[in-house]
Amino acid sequence: MKPPVIAVTMGDPAGIGPEILAKAFAKPDFHKENRTIVIGDATILERAARLLDLNLTINAIDKPEEAAFESGTADVLSITDLPEDLPHGELDERAGDAAFRYVEKAIELASAGRVAAIATAPLNKEAMHLAGHKYPGHTEILAELTGTKNYAMMLVTDELKVIHVSTHVSLREAIERAQPERELAVIRLAHESLQKLGVQNPRVAVAGINPHAGENGLFGDEDAKQIAPAVAAAVEEGIDATGPHPPDTVMMRARTGAFDIVVVQYHDQGHVPIKLMGFDTGVNVTVGLPFFRTSVDHGTAFDIAGTGKADDASLHAALDLARELAGAEEKSDASV
Amino acid sequence: MKPPVIAVTMGDPAGIGPEILAKAFAKPDFHKENRTIVIGDATILERAARLLDLNLTINAIDKPEEAAFESGTADVLSITDLPEDLPHGELDERAGDAAFRYVEKAIELASAGRVAAIATAPLNKEAMHLAGHKYPGHTEILAELTGTKNYAMMLVTDELKVIHVSTHVSLREAIERAQPERELAVIRLAHESLQKLGVQNPRVAVAGINPHAGENGLFGDEDAKQIAPAVAAAVEEGIDATGPHPPDTVMMRARTGAFDIVVVQYHDQGHVPIKLMGFDTGVNVTVGLPFFRTSVDHGTAFDIAGTGKADDASLHAALDLARELAGAEEKSDASV
Repeated sequence: MKPPVIAVTMGDPAGIGPEILAKAFAKPDFHKENRTIVIGDATILERAARLLDLNLTINAIDKPEEAAFESGTADVLSITDLPEDLPHGELDERAGDAAFRYVEKAIELASAGRVAAIATAPLNKEAMHLAGHKYPGHTEILAELTGTKNYAMMLVTDELKVIHVSTHVSLREAIERAQPERELAVIRLAHESLQKLGVQNPRVAVAGINPHAGENGLFGDEDAKQIAPAVAAAVEEGIDATGPHPPDTVMMRARTGAFDIVVVQYHDQGHVPIKLMGFDTGVNVTVGLPFFRTSVDHGTAFDIAGTGKADDASLHAALDLARELAGAEEKSDASV
Repeated sequence: MKPPVIAVTMGDPAGIGPEILAKAFAKPDFHKENRTIVIGDATILERAARLLDLNLTINAIDKPEEAAFESGTADVLSITDLPEDLPHGELDERAGDAAFRYVEKAIELASAGRVAAIATAPLNKEAMHLAGHKYPGHTEILAELTGTKNYAMMLVTDELKVIHVSTHVSLREAIERAQPERELAVIRLAHESLQKLGVQNPRVAVAGINPHAGENGLFGDEDAKQIAPAVAAAVEEGIDATGPHPPDTVMMRARTGAFDIVVVQYHDQGHVPIKLMGFDTGVNVTVGLPFFRTSVDHGTAFDIAGTGKADDASLHAALDLARELAGAEEKSDASV
């Protein structure tokens, strides 16, 4: 069986995206496991390959169906025409606009079923904002362009999986957003996503908001009022959900196997442990969309862009997980 | 040179405190490194030794100066008279009251210079509250009874050290408490404490409150308004302070050696990574008091109290660090 076709976006052309793509696609075995096309800019990808002194042929294509997936070749749907001297590692309106358009194109193809899933290289929010696309990040673009309300950011490492009730909002706002309806939606997404990854009856732990999950009201009532009712409702639906758990011990317990995933209440409750556990190979998954989207778990790294130092390990992990999720979906379609 | 005399409190007599003390003191080499007395209850400690089938002699003393520190012996300043059939692992007003009184006694001795530092076994807050002592935890008892305002909780593992701007308050309240004056006080405590541990010019990283430390105001203004001015003031004083840093990457950077300590803004920002990194051997240090106090980094574990399963590794780490801190203090006194 052939692997599913994945579209990977190039990310901000001034960041490390082009370099990690060039590194990955130049590996002789890359197309043995992957059937992946790049959505980006042929000129910029070629520049990255030259910079890294790689033997990589750029095969410009007009549609995914033209991809050849040949060793030493990157099939690129080149939808921008950036100059070869675009500065490395600098905020640039053109780069910000291009990064947005790659994502937009990927969404169009995935929504039409012409690619099975999306993987994304990092974009730079400030550059994208300069170009007038006022999104906090990839996830919000994906949600808006697909008209999805109940989506969530899941972070995956070998040792720990977390899914976020909220992400790119202030900590005060995160506490506000942690309401029962949202909690229940995220618990359901955690349950469904893990089932797609082959866990039959996922053990979903919900982390608390306050220290010790409020310790019976001593440190705030949000855990009892906002989280506990949603956990009870999930259990009613037959989901193996527990919590709110004290945040500091639930992570350790999940890491050592007591739970399959932790529902986390704010950006850093999930990001701190994940970055500690698997900085280089973490994968960010957007769940709840009509298709799966995985992403490297690092930024544009403007400080090292153009130096060739960027590591493509997280990109491989993102592509592997995208294949796994898309493949599982094909199977479940076939079994209907 | 003899090691400094440390007083260790027995903690809640219904929890695992007595068991971990009995295990530690029964080790043949214990008194080679330690000159440590127990403040607790002779009957309960004897019961723990019997339960664990240990060869441990209880030497009841009336004052620290009577301690013999002999192998296979625990010198116990026994200040309660609890019944031998006190239930294991249950909330008990008598146990809560006793746990409080052990701490009170230890503070009295340390304040008078009759012991060099304090180590504490875990107390149960609810039991202590039942007995009418309405403190959120050890730290607050120590602060009140010594009249200390600028104190902070530091957590220490081999790989990572953190110090907390606030701990046992709701997350909303923690955001409120993170004001410039408090930030500066905690940065200073971090600097001074690490100097006492032998780091000449400690690199103090201050973590932000919001995701990405607010990302230039996109996700809240607390980082810019509440934290940045304190970091600037600390730098003015000659402290090597930086921040506010994005919370999710600063922990990883500290772990890999970029900083000596991280100032964390709320309980779980520090506790989540520490528990992930060194659950069993973490030590909790209260800094800013007239003396040092270290503590095991676990609770009363009522679920396993009385079973003999409790591990004394964290207690040894707490005693080691108390000795190190107290010893360093003796040296610095001598050099005046």
